[in-house]
Amino acid sequence: MPGIIDFYFDFISPFSYLAHGQVPDMAARHGHDIAYHVVNLAALKLEGGNTGPTTREMPLKYKYSGTDMQRWAARYGTVIKRPTSHQPDRLNKGAFLADERGVMADYVTNVWRRVWGQGGDMGSDDLMRGVAADMDWDADGYLAFTVSDDAEARYQASTEAAHERGVFGVPTMIIGEEMWWGNDRLDFVEEYLAGDGGA
Amino acid sequence: MPGIIDFYFDFISPFSYLAHGQVPDMAARHGHDIAYHVVNLAALKLEGGNTGPTTREMPLKYKYSGTDMQRWAARYGTVIKRPTSHQPDRLNKGAFLADERGVMADYVTNVWRRVWGQGGDMGSDDLMRGVAADMDWDADGYLAFTVSDDAEARYQASTEAAHERGVFGVPTMIIGEEMWWGNDRLDFVEEYLAGDGGA
Repeated sequence: MPGIIDFYFDFISPFSYLAHGQVPDMAARHGHDIAYHVVNLAALKLEGGNTGPTTREMPLKYKYSGTDMQRWAARYGTVIKRPTSHQPDRLNKGAFLADERGVMADYVTNVWRRVWGQGGDMGSDDLMRGVAADMDWDADGYLAFTVSDDAEARYQASTEAAHERGVFGVPTMIIGEEMWWGNDRLDFVEEYLAGDGGA
Repeated sequence: MPGIIDFYFDFISPFSYLAHGQVPDMAARHGHDIAYHVVNLAALKLEGGNTGPTTREMPLKYKYSGTDMQRWAARYGTVIKRPTSHQPDRLNKGAFLADERGVMADYVTNVWRRVWGQGGDMGSDDLMRGVAADMDWDADGYLAFTVSDDAEARYQASTEAAHERGVFGVPTMIIGEEMWWGNDRLDFVEEYLAGDGGA
């Protein structure tokens, strides 16, 4: 049986986007599968006692974060562009539909390309209809699912399960009992996989 | 003339301790000098709009941070031990005396060994008297300096100057116009020094 990398994310997170550009190849190199876990980051942080402002609300940190994400994109040979809005909840909840249909990896890749790859309008119907087209899904059914009570219940349950497991931010990678927080810890994950944590 | 790495720190910060274990060698490898800038991290964060709780006030993040700092210590081949108290202001202000006497690098090294290397009682007279002994200083004079109006004024000015320069956390490294925040960005600093930023 392949090992599992649990990957916790919220589409609002640029560093989850950057990490997700690397994790599938890393998993493949070490014979691991990825288990995706979408969470409501804002709720998860509050549950973890993090009542502070977001990075966007701290001007110096926000400016630096823009430089930092571009440095990482250059290192990875990818592009990152800040989205024009920051309402990730419907896109996040859509992940449960993708999971049901067995196409989570494709969904995550498509959403992230539109949101952080192209700097899209994260909360818009237009962007979501584009994602539905990418996935060859009925757009109206997808949009309706993302505002359903079912999707909301799963979103809350997924966030609560992450909190119970000790997750307080994204991206978080867990392999067995080992946890790493942040795109900037992927080299530690790689070291772990190359050593004791390998398949 | 050698280039300068501006290094912003507060003795309360474990990741400043970890970074400082690396930065002097890195600077030397690339023909740079270090300019030390002590700041009041709590005040600096507030000035930057970061009104949130400290890591110690967020149980999940605090637990993870303990694991994370041990991973970094293992990578660096050093030791880190959480201090038994968290009042860094007098130690921080003592840095101005060390600067006057031209022994800043020694002071920083000695304080950090006692605080994060040995897990000392950061705010205690005992620890400070040990530092004075390390430095071959008169302990009473040192203790008196750290509660002087002069030291307090310089501490506030140093923190304000850091804020004006865009610093919002520690450790922060600045070379010319380029800024990096975090022990976990030292590899980017090294890349910069090996490339365009070299002496």
